[in-house]
Amino acid sequence: MTPEQAGAFLTIDLKAIAENRRSLQAHLGNATECAAVLKADAYGLGAAAVAKELYRTGCRTFFTAYAFEGTVVRSVAPDAKIYLLHGEWEGAETLCLENGLIPVFGSLRQIENWEAYAKKLGKTLPAALHVDTGMSRFGLTPENVDAFCARPPEGLKFELVISHLACADDKSSPKNEAQLAAFDAACARLKEALGYDFRRSLAASDGSRLPDSRFYKDIARPGIALYDNAVRLDARVLAVFNAKAGQTVGYGATFELNEDKRLAVLSIGYADGFPRSLSNKGMVVLCGRKVPVLGRVSMDLTVVDATGIPWEELRAAQTAEIFGGKIPLKEFAALAGTIDYEILTNLGKRIYRRYISEGGEG
Amino acid sequence: MTPEQAGAFLTIDLKAIAENRRSLQAHLGNATECAAVLKADAYGLGAAAVAKELYRTGCRTFFTAYAFEGTVVRSVAPDAKIYLLHGEWEGAETLCLENGLIPVFGSLRQIENWEAYAKKLGKTLPAALHVDTGMSRFGLTPENVDAFCARPPEGLKFELVISHLACADDKSSPKNEAQLAAFDAACARLKEALGYDFRRSLAASDGSRLPDSRFYKDIARPGIALYDNAVRLDARVLAVFNAKAGQTVGYGATFELNEDKRLAVLSIGYADGFPRSLSNKGMVVLCGRKVPVLGRVSMDLTVVDATGIPWEELRAAQTAEIFGGKIPLKEFAALAGTIDYEILTNLGKRIYRRYISEGGEG
Repeated sequence: MTPEQAGAFLTIDLKAIAENRRSLQAHLGNATECAAVLKADAYGLGAAAVAKELYRTGCRTFFTAYAFEGTVVRSVAPDAKIYLLHGEWEGAETLCLENGLIPVFGSLRQIENWEAYAKKLGKTLPAALHVDTGMSRFGLTPENVDAFCARPPEGLKFELVISHLACADDKSSPKNEAQLAAFDAACARLKEALGYDFRRSLAASDGSRLPDSRFYKDIARPGIALYDNAVRLDARVLAVFNAKAGQTVGYGATFELNEDKRLAVLSIGYADGFPRSLSNKGMVVLCGRKVPVLGRVSMDLTVVDATGIPWEELRAAQTAEIFGGKIPLKEFAALAGTIDYEILTNLGKRIYRRYISEGGEG
Repeated sequence: MTPEQAGAFLTIDLKAIAENRRSLQAHLGNATECAAVLKADAYGLGAAAVAKELYRTGCRTFFTAYAFEGTVVRSVAPDAKIYLLHGEWEGAETLCLENGLIPVFGSLRQIENWEAYAKKLGKTLPAALHVDTGMSRFGLTPENVDAFCARPPEGLKFELVISHLACADDKSSPKNEAQLAAFDAACARLKEALGYDFRRSLAASDGSRLPDSRFYKDIARPGIALYDNAVRLDARVLAVFNAKAGQTVGYGATFELNEDKRLAVLSIGYADGFPRSLSNKGMVVLCGRKVPVLGRVSMDLTVVDATGIPWEELRAAQTAEIFGGKIPLKEFAALAGTIDYEILTNLGKRIYRRYISEGGEG
């Protein structure tokens, strides 16, 4: 796909992403390494390009969910640490080993499988551990930690222990302090049982912004904090036309024109990640003006109100802004009834990704 | 990506898709050709595999939105008609020509561009036309049709004229009849102005199911009707664990356990197209039982209630059904507050696509 053939364009400012990490690193201080989370194709931005820029600008620790995501990072970050947040399971061991990917185990069963694998190879394998401290989602529970400590696995060297905060977006939540205490307690027990120390990681994006540096630990794992101000989405103006009072717009005829209007149809729809929940509700920026979505969002098309914009201006308009300029991503997401994370990770593959790096647009 | 490495699996029954088209063709009768709409990567199912099977079983007319989508179909359907529903614009002409893709023009501006291109080449180029009959979305408006008929473009041979129904899902909607009348009138005018006849297409999936065969015209363009009963989504059970009363689940601690429970975490999240709107609301099928989603859906993980399922059964469970078995796709979509189209087209690229064809699974 070339830009000429595409209907929508995601502009990804790699310089801004690198700068976000640098500035977060400065905030975290020298005792904490600022890593980067690149799962879900770097939140939809393209893991290879993002990883390459972050590696070039000094990032040496990355997190993905899956092993096949880790291999993409490995291809551009030859000597980086790459951790897999989903751990690993039977059948994916070789991929991990060949690419130097380190699973972050979240269950005893995963650990048993990896232990058996190490035994089979007759090697000591690097590993990491996720302990649950209050998400009740993934990670060893307190009773799992008991079992782990009663008989630490053989042939595995745990170099990192992580947990995840449930409410770090609310710095006044008492859950933060409770999770920190649970994490410290679990780490102390694990250290004693293993007989050696390891690095610790608790904070993701929101955790890295908590005012209290006790949350930062050895490694911070920002994801969205690296990306949310570095993207902009535009869609092609496919056609502009006049419509008469009484006409209805889109599927289900949910919007009826109460006066003659000028409409524009954009080459973007819910298949591209412009949510259908923005039907009769969304806003885009056309010729510098915020204008509303009319009718239902279709799979590949969205109609907006272009009334009042002169023909000459409209005919010169190649694209309309969806978010990232006059419409902040977070505002766009809120209007759609969700969060920026879901918007970015649902951007479709038909969208052309355009990267801005130090050398200019690429 | 191999199945062993994946977290979620979309099973696509190509035989069922072919059978859906055959049965729709039988319903439409001999006067109507049943085409297939393959835009948005065949509604997320994989355009290459779907096109190949449909072509093998006799389909000879396909519709995509973009030229780059048309090339995927062309690679497996050498002599098929392939129409582009977004028409074309400056910069994508060569791709169309080289791949024999026929744009369905929806604005005078697009037509002018194509006319200039034909003139430059000194050739007559095939073309198709979209007339708007009540969607107010894409297609020539009545005033555009006037202008078109006043001076039919030179160097273009219009072989197909289409329109699109706004309310075909409601067979009692008076809009259907109004659009049919407007379409017939527009076609009559175009035929007179062009001085030759062309094929006509009005019905998409819902239109093809309207009881009145006057809607079927020469070509029907089903999309979702080919796919909605031919897919099934499953997700890997990543871990199972016990949780105690008082614990909270997931981000924001939005679900608090009122009793001790057994939980399972699935390797799927909103980045994969399991909508975040299903937080504390969705259902999945685990070990044959419908069980609820607890807490917020995360980007890559979803926690469900596995209480009451014996450990032995749970440990043997490799996957849970998301939809397409006990949970119909439409029911899943409704629970998420949307429609099956949006669910399918938002399924993420991390999901492993597994095809069932005549030769078995592939």
